[in-house]
Amino acid sequence: MAAKVSSAVIRRLPRYYRYVQSLCSQGISRVSSNELAQALGFTASQVRQDFSCFGGFGQQGYGYNTETLRDRLAEILNLQAGCRGVIVGMGSMAQSLFTDGVFSRCGVSIAACFDTDPEKIGRVIGDVTVLDAAMLEQFCMEFHPAVAVLTCPGSAAQSTADILMRCGVRGIWNFTSVDIQAEGSRTAVENVHLADSLMTLCCRIPAQQEARESMPLSERLAMRVFAPLGNR
Amino acid sequence: MAAKVSSAVIRRLPRYYRYVQSLCSQGISRVSSNELAQALGFTASQVRQDFSCFGGFGQQGYGYNTETLRDRLAEILNLQAGCRGVIVGMGSMAQSLFTDGVFSRCGVSIAACFDTDPEKIGRVIGDVTVLDAAMLEQFCMEFHPAVAVLTCPGSAAQSTADILMRCGVRGIWNFTSVDIQAEGSRTAVENVHLADSLMTLCCRIPAQQEARESMPLSERLAMRVFAPLGNR
Repeated sequence: MAAKVSSAVIRRLPRYYRYVQSLCSQGISRVSSNELAQALGFTASQVRQDFSCFGGFGQQGYGYNTETLRDRLAEILNLQAGCRGVIVGMGSMAQSLFTDGVFSRCGVSIAACFDTDPEKIGRVIGDVTVLDAAMLEQFCMEFHPAVAVLTCPGSAAQSTADILMRCGVRGIWNFTSVDIQAEGSRTAVENVHLADSLMTLCCRIPAQQEARESMPLSERLAMRVFAPLGNR
Repeated sequence: MAAKVSSAVIRRLPRYYRYVQSLCSQGISRVSSNELAQALGFTASQVRQDFSCFGGFGQQGYGYNTETLRDRLAEILNLQAGCRGVIVGMGSMAQSLFTDGVFSRCGVSIAACFDTDPEKIGRVIGDVTVLDAAMLEQFCMEFHPAVAVLTCPGSAAQSTADILMRCGVRGIWNFTSVDIQAEGSRTAVENVHLADSLMTLCCRIPAQQEARESMPLSERLAMRVFAPLGNR
């Protein structure tokens, strides 16, 4: 399916899903393409066009049943069937992704975690034991994870990705600052690049006001009572 | 500056910066628009056009001096001057962002963190004390943070964003699953939406191989020796 649909459409699907899911949880049972368009900042014709890529989900003039739409989107997004994933690099980001529950929300079941740090190898995180990164290739060859989460240091990113691609991993969720070279492979790479996102934000905001302040923040903070109120 | 330049150009700047910085650290002192284009998947004319938005950084036919280019990009991205930020919601994601060092890399100095959990209020993370979220408005009115990192639960996202916008916070880095409504305000919102990113990846990969496996993964794992090798 995904091969025939443009990546721009695919990129909009999670937003539809998220919004329709929130309608369902509010008990709203019907939504029109106009309402969807307005809530998500698309045009109504774009919504109809997007949905027509998957055979259309509604009846002309009737709008969509939210539960049917949600289930159909979940199906297209492969959330129910799910897929198997591994994590390479068990730093604080990987652990916070676990805590956050993003994997289960997206239908990814983490089968194994890998790290090179002997301190971390053998630890149990969630219900998964951290394995030695030296076993990554053997594991992937045998258990065919579909997705790998790359949370290792940038210096190890490309060499790890090379192993993953060689083993037939189909998708790499890349949290490193490195742009993974994946030309010629069938592996899809989705970059998170958090620093790029924050830099973009900082670049979009006007010049700072703090230049006008004469006293350093630390001194001003010390003068004011923003005391911890922990023990109330 | 940012107002005149399209958001598509701004979104490419961190990628230029990241790549040029890696050239500098390899001791490479010159790069052409062709080389930049090839490395980053743009066209050479796009590179030249992007740079011309900022007055151009090189001499025709000569390429760019990498250190000058890096410093100029850092200046445009406001990395040196930096800005003041606050974090709302001190869960594991906020803590991993701290550990990761993304704020200092992007020139954002975190002035305060906020949470509603009495267990967290008063704790020191990095060199910042977690304050009661009830003080957020007062703090922002007084200390004018430019950027706020929204890592609170989705249910509190819009109401927190409303406070931040009312207090003149110029940029919101949104990690919640909610699409913040910021129309009519001067506040820029940059959404991370990690689940959308992972769903997009899963949607782009072909159907799973594991359907062919007859034995559940847990049983197959138990049969194989992927023993923790922690104490070697």
